[in-house]
Amino acid sequence: MRSTQRHGQPDVPDLTSPGEGGPAPAGVLGRTLAILEAFAGGEASLSLGVLSRRSGLPKSTVFRMVSEMCRERMLERNEDGSYRLGLRLFEIGERVPTYRSLSEVARPIMEDLREATRQRIHLAILEGVDVVYVEIVGANLLSVGSRTGGRFPAHATGVGKALLAYSPAAVVQARIDAGLPRLTARTITTPGALHRDLRQTRTKGFAQDREESHVGISCVAAPVFGSDSKVTAALSITGRTTSIDPARLGPAVLTAAHTLGRSLRESHL
Amino acid sequence: MRSTQRHGQPDVPDLTSPGEGGPAPAGVLGRTLAILEAFAGGEASLSLGVLSRRSGLPKSTVFRMVSEMCRERMLERNEDGSYRLGLRLFEIGERVPTYRSLSEVARPIMEDLREATRQRIHLAILEGVDVVYVEIVGANLLSVGSRTGGRFPAHATGVGKALLAYSPAAVVQARIDAGLPRLTARTITTPGALHRDLRQTRTKGFAQDREESHVGISCVAAPVFGSDSKVTAALSITGRTTSIDPARLGPAVLTAAHTLGRSLRESHL
Repeated sequence: MRSTQRHGQPDVPDLTSPGEGGPAPAGVLGRTLAILEAFAGGEASLSLGVLSRRSGLPKSTVFRMVSEMCRERMLERNEDGSYRLGLRLFEIGERVPTYRSLSEVARPIMEDLREATRQRIHLAILEGVDVVYVEIVGANLLSVGSRTGGRFPAHATGVGKALLAYSPAAVVQARIDAGLPRLTARTITTPGALHRDLRQTRTKGFAQDREESHVGISCVAAPVFGSDSKVTAALSITGRTTSIDPARLGPAVLTAAHTLGRSLRESHL
Repeated sequence: MRSTQRHGQPDVPDLTSPGEGGPAPAGVLGRTLAILEAFAGGEASLSLGVLSRRSGLPKSTVFRMVSEMCRERMLERNEDGSYRLGLRLFEIGERVPTYRSLSEVARPIMEDLREATRQRIHLAILEGVDVVYVEIVGANLLSVGSRTGGRFPAHATGVGKALLAYSPAAVVQARIDAGLPRLTARTITTPGALHRDLRQTRTKGFAQDREESHVGISCVAAPVFGSDSKVTAALSITGRTTSIDPARLGPAVLTAAHTLGRSLRESHL
């Protein structure tokens, strides 16, 4: 399967065009990832043309890459000639330790919280200036945009604000520098309002999202402190605004976050 | 994040050409995957030396590859110089449609089954001659070896036998040809016994694992038929042998499998 001999072959075409402004991905790895990232839009299958457009790579290059990627089971070819992500990527993704260990420890605690509240429970971590959902428990009856592996800008979500409130100032500044995009009419979009909200979060110990990411949906979210006493994750209880009473659910999410933090510290995570 | 300037650098291995007859060697993609597969053993972090040994690549090659992979956030470097899989791989893996759609439809049904039985619920698909777990609900109190994204040989598990019983004969033969490795004293290890078990499974409509994959652990498992009326997955109820009464739990797992199949067909999955 593996070859170290193909390395220096001269018939490799020049694929990137430096100096033309467009960030065409460089190297096989960059091109591979550009093709994989074309699926970030959420479609199950993409045609060669769409892959080419989204990756910024010529069709001939994409064709060669996807053939190779199919051989390696990173992609699978549909009968209509379009491509979907291969199960091998799922298998590799499930081995990522941040996900696996957090998720294994958190699942039972999240299921308890869900049974107690009958709402949707999120576990997220901060990745750069976004939150990434690592585990979700409870059906998505409300068509909330969250899914495991999905990203949201940190300032617009309860879990994101719980994480930012206990992160170094530089992390909050990075989010501000990256912009505070508006997701709903209630999204925080100014640095002053964000700092004020994070102070309130620290005072209460938990964050609130009042329809800031989805109209009609609110949440309470609490930070989770791991073995190095740094904030490693956040838990939230999410539901219809009318079902999310912070006075009642704040203590519940805080309790679960403390339990999870203790479990993580006991597991040295 | 992408650089167009590294393109011409001699130390970046570049794209291999399409096949010159015979199976095309793996090139950069194959080397990348060989490094990622080194983590299949389950360790969170691996040193350069272990990566080199497991991938079969020289240390210098591994060093160059992991540097590139860290830049692309496929790997992350620990403070002690070892490497772990990067969160980006988790994000990509969660987009794999087989996993995502099956899992989204199955989760609420699996949670119902778990509440009704208080056992661990597995959802698996057949991938070649192995089962791959795509979703698991319920805490792993019994230290069962299953985890999402994990593989088990199909003949040794309830979900695997439920899948094999309704698959074409060639699939069963492929499992036999690949060998019938023994996991416990009760694992089926002969073709005759496997065919006999699969016939019984078809008669009852569900499969049983009687301590065939783990000592002390049994399960009942039912096939799930998707929109093309082919078997697409299997559901199981797994627990201590003393808790798994097939007469009582068989109908439960069959009911849930029918519900899931109907939901999949309604979603055209």
